[in-house]
Amino acid sequence: MTPLIHTPQWQILAAHRDVLAGIHLNDLFAADPQRFARLSLQCGDLLCDFSKQRLTTETLALLVRLAEARDLAGFLRRMAAGEAINATENRAALHIALRAERPYRVAGRDVLPEVRATRARMRELTEAIRSGSWRGSSGARIDTIVNLGIGGSDLGPRMAAQALGAYADANLAARFVANIDPAEFADTVRDLDPERTLFIVSSKTFTTQETLANARAARAWLGKADPARHFLAVSNNLAAARDFGIPAENCLAMADWVGGRFSMWSAIGLPLACSIGMDAFEELLAGARQMDEHFLSTPYAENLPVVMALVGLWNIDFLGADSLAVIPYAHRLGLLPAYLQQLEMESNGKRVTLDNQEVGCATAPILWGMAGSVGQHAFHQLFYQGTRLTPIDFVVPVGDASPEQEALVANALAQGAALMKGKSLAEARAQLVAAGKSAAEAERLAPHLACPGNQPSTTLLMPQLTPRTLGSLIALYEHKVAVQGCLWGVNSFDQWGVEHGKQMAREILPKMLAGAGDFDDPKEIPLWDASTTGLLAAIRAWRKA
Amino acid sequence: MTPLIHTPQWQILAAHRDVLAGIHLNDLFAADPQRFARLSLQCGDLLCDFSKQRLTTETLALLVRLAEARDLAGFLRRMAAGEAINATENRAALHIALRAERPYRVAGRDVLPEVRATRARMRELTEAIRSGSWRGSSGARIDTIVNLGIGGSDLGPRMAAQALGAYADANLAARFVANIDPAEFADTVRDLDPERTLFIVSSKTFTTQETLANARAARAWLGKADPARHFLAVSNNLAAARDFGIPAENCLAMADWVGGRFSMWSAIGLPLACSIGMDAFEELLAGARQMDEHFLSTPYAENLPVVMALVGLWNIDFLGADSLAVIPYAHRLGLLPAYLQQLEMESNGKRVTLDNQEVGCATAPILWGMAGSVGQHAFHQLFYQGTRLTPIDFVVPVGDASPEQEALVANALAQGAALMKGKSLAEARAQLVAAGKSAAEAERLAPHLACPGNQPSTTLLMPQLTPRTLGSLIALYEHKVAVQGCLWGVNSFDQWGVEHGKQMAREILPKMLAGAGDFDDPKEIPLWDASTTGLLAAIRAWRKA
Repeated sequence: MTPLIHTPQWQILAAHRDVLAGIHLNDLFAADPQRFARLSLQCGDLLCDFSKQRLTTETLALLVRLAEARDLAGFLRRMAAGEAINATENRAALHIALRAERPYRVAGRDVLPEVRATRARMRELTEAIRSGSWRGSSGARIDTIVNLGIGGSDLGPRMAAQALGAYADANLAARFVANIDPAEFADTVRDLDPERTLFIVSSKTFTTQETLANARAARAWLGKADPARHFLAVSNNLAAARDFGIPAENCLAMADWVGGRFSMWSAIGLPLACSIGMDAFEELLAGARQMDEHFLSTPYAENLPVVMALVGLWNIDFLGADSLAVIPYAHRLGLLPAYLQQLEMESNGKRVTLDNQEVGCATAPILWGMAGSVGQHAFHQLFYQGTRLTPIDFVVPVGDASPEQEALVANALAQGAALMKGKSLAEARAQLVAAGKSAAEAERLAPHLACPGNQPSTTLLMPQLTPRTLGSLIALYEHKVAVQGCLWGVNSFDQWGVEHGKQMAREILPKMLAGAGDFDDPKEIPLWDASTTGLLAAIRAWRKA
Repeated sequence: MTPLIHTPQWQILAAHRDVLAGIHLNDLFAADPQRFARLSLQCGDLLCDFSKQRLTTETLALLVRLAEARDLAGFLRRMAAGEAINATENRAALHIALRAERPYRVAGRDVLPEVRATRARMRELTEAIRSGSWRGSSGARIDTIVNLGIGGSDLGPRMAAQALGAYADANLAARFVANIDPAEFADTVRDLDPERTLFIVSSKTFTTQETLANARAARAWLGKADPARHFLAVSNNLAAARDFGIPAENCLAMADWVGGRFSMWSAIGLPLACSIGMDAFEELLAGARQMDEHFLSTPYAENLPVVMALVGLWNIDFLGADSLAVIPYAHRLGLLPAYLQQLEMESNGKRVTLDNQEVGCATAPILWGMAGSVGQHAFHQLFYQGTRLTPIDFVVPVGDASPEQEALVANALAQGAALMKGKSLAEARAQLVAAGKSAAEAERLAPHLACPGNQPSTTLLMPQLTPRTLGSLIALYEHKVAVQGCLWGVNSFDQWGVEHGKQMAREILPKMLAGAGDFDDPKEIPLWDASTTGLLAAIRAWRKA
């Protein structure tokens, strides 16, 4: 396949970028009174306003042609047909089937029955736990679920359980432990009662280092409580789970056609379903399904995930943006940036195409963020007066009409507007004079008050943060990532890069556990660089002291 | 002053960068067996290994000359002398005085007596609360402190209270509310008893929108409990605090020669001091003081904060790094990235020098991160195989010798080593063949397993996470930021950019609170762009539905 950057469509976009260069967003708004109407899109209750991005409808049309040139339609067809689009692992990437109400086939086999069976099993389990018919081994009712998992087995349900705190069962708390650092487990269980705690071990292979360490810590902490009454597992390794003490009837399976970071819709969502109930969980699926249907059936120019993907690619590859900030103006969405960080950076943090060429342009950005309005008092300064192009996604559930909530939403809108509009030197000067500064002082200080503006942002507005709108929101980003991966030509569904560090840790760990020893054995220098050797020596010296 | 990028020292560095281009970190280690010894530095219990940065001792020497050319020594002298180095606000930036045991003068006046008086008052208050001699208005003992503050009045004590959880009083919890979103307050107090809860309102002016909203929510939640027994304030506005119901004897003052993001050492640290006790808080100050003394007295080439600043500037301005990831391998340090985000991005997210020129090069990076090992299962993929240069600071308290702790530390070291070393195509091919793949399969897949390596990182190693090492660590970053600000010529101590968004919010809010109205009045279009107007109209339509 022609490398992306050598396609004629790319060249046309590069020339178009040069034409737009130097045009301020304020000029684009002045030139087109219909700009908001033309550049905002809606799907269900999700309104996406792209009008504060540095582009025009012509830019979007050219980007759509780039997508067509990369056969996005064929990619979507193969994805929905359950073909092995995860080519390096020879697997499908069919997370849309997890929220489906219609058949999807993987290798010719309809997976809807097994999806429904898992949902039914989740309903049984969550209803048993929430109603109190599930009892701990001493006969006590469960009051806390603790999920033990990491990465894709942690971030999704953790993020969503916090986001949907308003829907949580007041008598059943959901907590999450991911880190191998024993402090996280200790801090999480400190105030819990073993007889009333139910752990969920989430590990497809039941071998994940961190998760197994925490599962062992949990078993020890439970004391004499029967693991069969205090452990569930989401795993395909029934033998290992059984050896650990978790009977097969306590295990839920995971399909191999779903990657970890796309799996919160599956049995991985069990802790979330415990917290909000299976009806609300099904609403989450329905919200995602609505986005799926929109995604698979809407022309690109009105297709939310496609347009979002194209806007992102434009910012990254044509305008040189190196990060994407996600700022949810809802405190309970505080983990959304961490969740999307995995989704985007693990999926498209790639440099080689499926036909083994260098991509040739920048791929996934650094995705980061924090809940608004908190970030305004921390890092927004850089957005206003730093030296970087900083695209932002503002995620704004409008919520009720209380004064505090209105202030929160007003802040969200104000940040987007102020970052776009900027403040000229003349405005800064006038403001300083109005505040009582002398003309000379105002002249000296104005450059420190002025802001260039022209910072691009997308606003994602929704009436309320509900299971349904959250489902749509997450599915939106999932599809955005897949579209960008298709255009860059990378495999968005593997994560082979991370193997290297794991292997290195397996080599270093035995030496550390052996305590004082041959850390500086010259034979090991080819294996461990002088830095690692030096750090290990420092550790050994501290241990001895 | 000559713009930084036009100095001869800058030009020499640019030429030197071109000489180093294409040399892999592996080559630098191969060329110099003493590289670790030459490029690692220690201050107290903090060991900083810079040897995995893409530079040589010659690079550092050239960077030191750049610092000399910018009169870093003069800047440090003026800072320590309490001169108004925050020139736009005509204030000193003398946070080092907050941890001092010797006189520092601001405008000729020794501030040590007032610093000591504040510490003494903090000791009285914390001892009263911790011992139970402070009682709620019903006579109950306080079991939870809730800090109400945002930005610099929140992030420091919040980060440190979590980091030093092992030192916390088991009978006194510390919680933090920052967001104006009412959900944060509601989620924080849900399980608390008003009679046993003591709020600290942290706002220098007692006018901060978010903090005052939360203070009002707290007063309402307390019901008939006497505010004088359930509120403290860290504020200079005694009249406003009194009007709110907080008597003067419950107020601690803040000096105007300390900026919010440098203030955790002051009375702003009160919630932290309540949690860990004043002795431990003084240890934190002692750790910072140790770093201060090192910083002010050590030649640049061996000066931890100076070298860290120079390395960062090298990465940003000569190698083109656009972000800095901070990955603490200690779960309790999970808020460190958020804390440093404010410190770096608010301090140096600037584009204009003190003599009113454009800086002309990139300033503060996007600072972000998450606790290791959790991030390995989320975003590390991009470090290994993405398209970006991604400098990382690994912060690693070695801790005790338990197997889980050793695994955590081994993971930290392994990530730094693996990201530097990379994996060649030949190694990837051999690994795939060893795993049973055919030669053809291995050939096809190897590019997806290979990693270029050469990713730079700094490892900050310390024996344990203690109040003292945490104090040193935070002071290290504070000074790093100040040095970078000096080199770039910006004022690291103001944050005037954020005013613009606040003003815009003040204009939008009354319209939102007025409900349905004239959002689309054409007269307002000059004030509000069509995007803001369109979003407000969507909100109005949802409200009506």
